[in-house]
Amino acid sequence: MTATTDTDDPWAGAGPGPRRLLEAALAAFAARGYHGASTRDIAAAAGMSPAGVYAHHRTKADLLFAISEAGHRHVLAVCERAVSEEAGALARVRALVHDYAAWHARHHLLARVVQYEMDALLPEHRSVVVELRRRTERLFRQEIQDGVDTGAFDTPDVGSATLAALSLGIDVSRWYAPGGSRTPVGIGRAYAGLVLAMLGAGPPATGPGGRVP
Amino acid sequence: MTATTDTDDPWAGAGPGPRRLLEAALAAFAARGYHGASTRDIAAAAGMSPAGVYAHHRTKADLLFAISEAGHRHVLAVCERAVSEEAGALARVRALVHDYAAWHARHHLLARVVQYEMDALLPEHRSVVVELRRRTERLFRQEIQDGVDTGAFDTPDVGSATLAALSLGIDVSRWYAPGGSRTPVGIGRAYAGLVLAMLGAGPPATGPGGRVP
Repeated sequence: MTATTDTDDPWAGAGPGPRRLLEAALAAFAARGYHGASTRDIAAAAGMSPAGVYAHHRTKADLLFAISEAGHRHVLAVCERAVSEEAGALARVRALVHDYAAWHARHHLLARVVQYEMDALLPEHRSVVVELRRRTERLFRQEIQDGVDTGAFDTPDVGSATLAALSLGIDVSRWYAPGGSRTPVGIGRAYAGLVLAMLGAGPPATGPGGRVP
Repeated sequence: MTATTDTDDPWAGAGPGPRRLLEAALAAFAARGYHGASTRDIAAAAGMSPAGVYAHHRTKADLLFAISEAGHRHVLAVCERAVSEEAGALARVRALVHDYAAWHARHHLLARVVQYEMDALLPEHRSVVVELRRRTERLFRQEIQDGVDTGAFDTPDVGSATLAALSLGIDVSRWYAPGGSRTPVGIGRAYAGLVLAMLGAGPPATGPGGRVP
């Protein structure tokens, strides 16, 4: 539930050249899909020659891996930070759902590539990305399970509830449109309330730390 | 919540030639995305010449429209049938969420093309498909609103709850894998229970008609 900060940058640490290329590849993959975007499209969007592209990352597959890994690492860090700032299962899950859904709105193009192009990754790349995704999933599952164990939540099937909480956040990247009536923070608040209700935590209320949901 | 029947066919009414072509185009779009699939790929998958493709539908854009329209029409019919067989908001929303989520598993390749390639439609095609999608959305919203009005549900924001219920169903088509541990009917049951809890209807119970959720 933190505001956008300078850690809200999935390409943190990348120099200007690699960053320009990653952003061009991301735009091309988001617009035309991985298979529909050519290396030439990406080079043109980055203002580079194809040789300039190959100097940074050899292939289109490498670019997809770089984007996917950065995106999954970034959203995992956002989730870890969300729970680290809250105490108690209810406040932690609220923060987790809020920040996860808001991330998928704020970074909706990145999220689309990261979440919908998993099958286009090479097997050796996919295994790295799948492991990052599993860490995010385990975090959700653990926090929901903790809430059930401590009596904060009442849901008969933690696995399905975890799947649904993640799925709601991911699907934001499909329908979100910047400038529409729903903002990243508004989506985060609404979905945090709905997921808490789904988990049997009762209607949303002010959390233990006094933060408004 | 009906079993698979002969109305569970999105291409009902299409002859063998058009059906073969629609299925080939669907497979190509689902595997490589609309922009990544060529008319030549589609013709090869259908066992036709490119000229044979053009005899049925002139362009790749026409094939995407035919698939999108058939899919949106089919899922709308499934939803209308689901509510028509139940009385009372709780049973009707349970059936709606169940059948909508199960449809997105059972027809996951069709659902992916229908839900994720909206932006690839030509404007004149998109308006037809958007109107069909709005009819499905209005059906969900109306049934949820009816439940709030009659006291069956307690949710502070019908718009967000409707969005979430639809979104959960749609995202099934992203993660569902045939032969995995989750079946279309199992997903339908789990999600119907979770959405009813999200709507403040309390834990899932046997419906008025004696149907197990």
